[in-house]
Amino acid sequence: MAKETGMKEKSILILGAGRSSSALITYLLEGAIEGGWHVTVGDFSIKAAEERIGSSKKGTAIRFNIEETERCEEIIGSADIVISLLPAGFHPIVARLCLKYSKHLFTASYVSDEMKNFHEEAKVKGLLFMNECGLDPGIDHMSAMEIIDRIKSAGGKILSFESFAGGLIAPETDPNNPWRYKFTWNPRNVVVAGQGTAKFIQEGQYKFIPYQQLFTRTTSVHIPGYGDFQGYANRDSLKYIDAYGLRGIKTMLRGTLRNEGFCSAWNILVQLGCTDDSYLMENVNQMTNRDFINSFLPYDKEMMLEAKLADRFNLSADGPEMQKLKWSGLFEKQHIGLEKGTPAQLLEHILNKKWNLQPNDKDMVVMWHRFVYEIENEKREIQSNIAAIGDDSIHTAMAKGVGLPIAITAKIFLQGKISQRGVCIPVEREVYEPVLKELMSLGIHAQEKETVIK
Amino acid sequence: MAKETGMKEKSILILGAGRSSSALITYLLEGAIEGGWHVTVGDFSIKAAEERIGSSKKGTAIRFNIEETERCEEIIGSADIVISLLPAGFHPIVARLCLKYSKHLFTASYVSDEMKNFHEEAKVKGLLFMNECGLDPGIDHMSAMEIIDRIKSAGGKILSFESFAGGLIAPETDPNNPWRYKFTWNPRNVVVAGQGTAKFIQEGQYKFIPYQQLFTRTTSVHIPGYGDFQGYANRDSLKYIDAYGLRGIKTMLRGTLRNEGFCSAWNILVQLGCTDDSYLMENVNQMTNRDFINSFLPYDKEMMLEAKLADRFNLSADGPEMQKLKWSGLFEKQHIGLEKGTPAQLLEHILNKKWNLQPNDKDMVVMWHRFVYEIENEKREIQSNIAAIGDDSIHTAMAKGVGLPIAITAKIFLQGKISQRGVCIPVEREVYEPVLKELMSLGIHAQEKETVIK
Repeated sequence: MAKETGMKEKSILILGAGRSSSALITYLLEGAIEGGWHVTVGDFSIKAAEERIGSSKKGTAIRFNIEETERCEEIIGSADIVISLLPAGFHPIVARLCLKYSKHLFTASYVSDEMKNFHEEAKVKGLLFMNECGLDPGIDHMSAMEIIDRIKSAGGKILSFESFAGGLIAPETDPNNPWRYKFTWNPRNVVVAGQGTAKFIQEGQYKFIPYQQLFTRTTSVHIPGYGDFQGYANRDSLKYIDAYGLRGIKTMLRGTLRNEGFCSAWNILVQLGCTDDSYLMENVNQMTNRDFINSFLPYDKEMMLEAKLADRFNLSADGPEMQKLKWSGLFEKQHIGLEKGTPAQLLEHILNKKWNLQPNDKDMVVMWHRFVYEIENEKREIQSNIAAIGDDSIHTAMAKGVGLPIAITAKIFLQGKISQRGVCIPVEREVYEPVLKELMSLGIHAQEKETVIK
Repeated sequence: MAKETGMKEKSILILGAGRSSSALITYLLEGAIEGGWHVTVGDFSIKAAEERIGSSKKGTAIRFNIEETERCEEIIGSADIVISLLPAGFHPIVARLCLKYSKHLFTASYVSDEMKNFHEEAKVKGLLFMNECGLDPGIDHMSAMEIIDRIKSAGGKILSFESFAGGLIAPETDPNNPWRYKFTWNPRNVVVAGQGTAKFIQEGQYKFIPYQQLFTRTTSVHIPGYGDFQGYANRDSLKYIDAYGLRGIKTMLRGTLRNEGFCSAWNILVQLGCTDDSYLMENVNQMTNRDFINSFLPYDKEMMLEAKLADRFNLSADGPEMQKLKWSGLFEKQHIGLEKGTPAQLLEHILNKKWNLQPNDKDMVVMWHRFVYEIENEKREIQSNIAAIGDDSIHTAMAKGVGLPIAITAKIFLQGKISQRGVCIPVEREVYEPVLKELMSLGIHAQEKETVIK
């Protein structure tokens, strides 16, 4: 492996200047002189990129459009490392260019099958393609692996691992919002979250939850100091059994956290079909919010929309689900204001009117792990949690939680401290140890409690 | 357009010798001398193809494997017309070869987006790619268009069209089967039926039913002489508004018929996730039927599977849904007997033990249309139905219903009586009139009743 020497100024290319980019870009700009690098931020909107750079002399804003192939080749070709915050679907395009021009790549996204296929080629070329390196996935992997490695080296055997994380709003933000939720990351991803089948193992039994059951199969999670939450299973937990070195574990479940009451109301939107992203609806330009909901309910010339909805899903007319839907404006005779769209796109547009962060809103990220392990004939439990509250709608806890781990990982990589190559996730000590240490100095650290199970 | 003259013997290539092929192949073999054609039947299993040909001198059985590209080219290249009964996903491959070698193509499958894209090229080359030319889709289009054209030429205006069809079992078959259902066509298609979103229009309101609601939003259908059925919405009814020339119609709904009670029990399997075909399950080789169902239910160390299921879906312990699931063997501690598979594949395998047609079982196909139209200030309704009962498990009503319309369409095409070209469905009079006429002579004909709506 060629050691990065830092002799000449390195060029860090960041693709995407959206919601989650502020802390990442600020961190790398502030460390640029000491680190010996220059930061180029590319976005479809050059204005967005310029705003992130501000007055820094160590940054350059450029226009970046993934569809302009030639220019993308030029831009990626002249970087040393690439950090992609683009929607996950674009990562394979970026990864292919990184392979072509021998560039290292960092993302906060899940390793897709397509990405996984680049492993051998990247490895042969001595390239690191580090993914799942944000908050969740990201900090969750790192903080879990720190505990797993600690238990293992003490001679313990891990029986069960459950982990839940979520991006929410701070307790004092938007007190009348009955969902206790706003968009703090890509709204589209929030609307389509959970589509597919969740997979996990519980007490040795493989479990599969299809999308239509996901928001009804929740788990209560109490986080000391932060209160009670609901978790729902997140994607494929099974693939982390090997990634975490936990073969033979009896329970392995990763999940997403929401405030209590969120899931049962969201489930109504799922059941109706409002989160479907697979087809364009008819007559969208004339559609009101109320028409939108009605198009998923049976025709009935007598019954009001609200009555049909309550009847169909067995809801109390002024119960918590109906209240949340009403608060979101979904029963209003107001034009949606889009020309066309899928149900998911229309729903996002309607919800965004209420769920868009206001300048002084603060978000909150919470993460919680529970391990059960055996050591010296004793069963023990470790609960660990990390929580952070954002400063405002730009400097969100989400942007810090996603951006800082990538930024720190990129930094330690440029310092020559990461030896692995190929398509990776941050489960090795050489990555998680320095990243967690620096996150702690930035105020992001875990609280841990260990108890003996009787 | 080059008129087909029939001067030299034509070669009809039939791809697929499965469940629905018997009547088609028999019809074309019997008509071969008069029609001046030869029938080649290609199947992955040459034995299946040979069985269909029997002792006929006008038929040849060959092995056909869609993955052996060179041999497929040779086989298709030497035919005059191709009838594909392969699973719909293979039609584009066949269609591309038909374009390459300038062959006409007939299928009983829905026109996919991919198939639609061949329209211009097929038209330019003077080729007919006739699809949706079986029972449903097929006879339903033809019998509906016959009535639509009749109403229109009398000066009527059609307000509403509802159409339901289904392949069931005859009333006297398998009297203890509580589903009143068996596999009479491709079992895989039965298991995954309805995935996606059903679209239709009702009283001028566009309606969308996602898969998770489909089997709970049923319509009662009474068919005189056959009793009461349930219908659920079938795919995209909206695209037939233009295909049928019904722009401006207020209600347009196509659906699938099942016996009463089927849908609420099937819905449990859908809700559980048993019909998911998108991932391979774990540990399938050790799995019992009971494990299979349990993997979709929450872990609970106290509760029995049946109790969890009844509790989750609010079912009575000995109610009709639980009875059907039990009868199907889904609660048995019996090994499934597959090495691997998706939930849908495992479910099909389990159900097939009970739902496989026995030699003397008879199937039944039923189809029902209802039109509402205005003429001379009067509102009128036409109900039309077609029903047929099979002879046995080979000569099924389904095989006749699917096979005969394709066979007749192919025949009249070879007689030079179809002028349209490109990707078509059988909605033109030049097709439906002779096909319906001949079907009637074969005992498949509609019963119709017209009433004035007060």
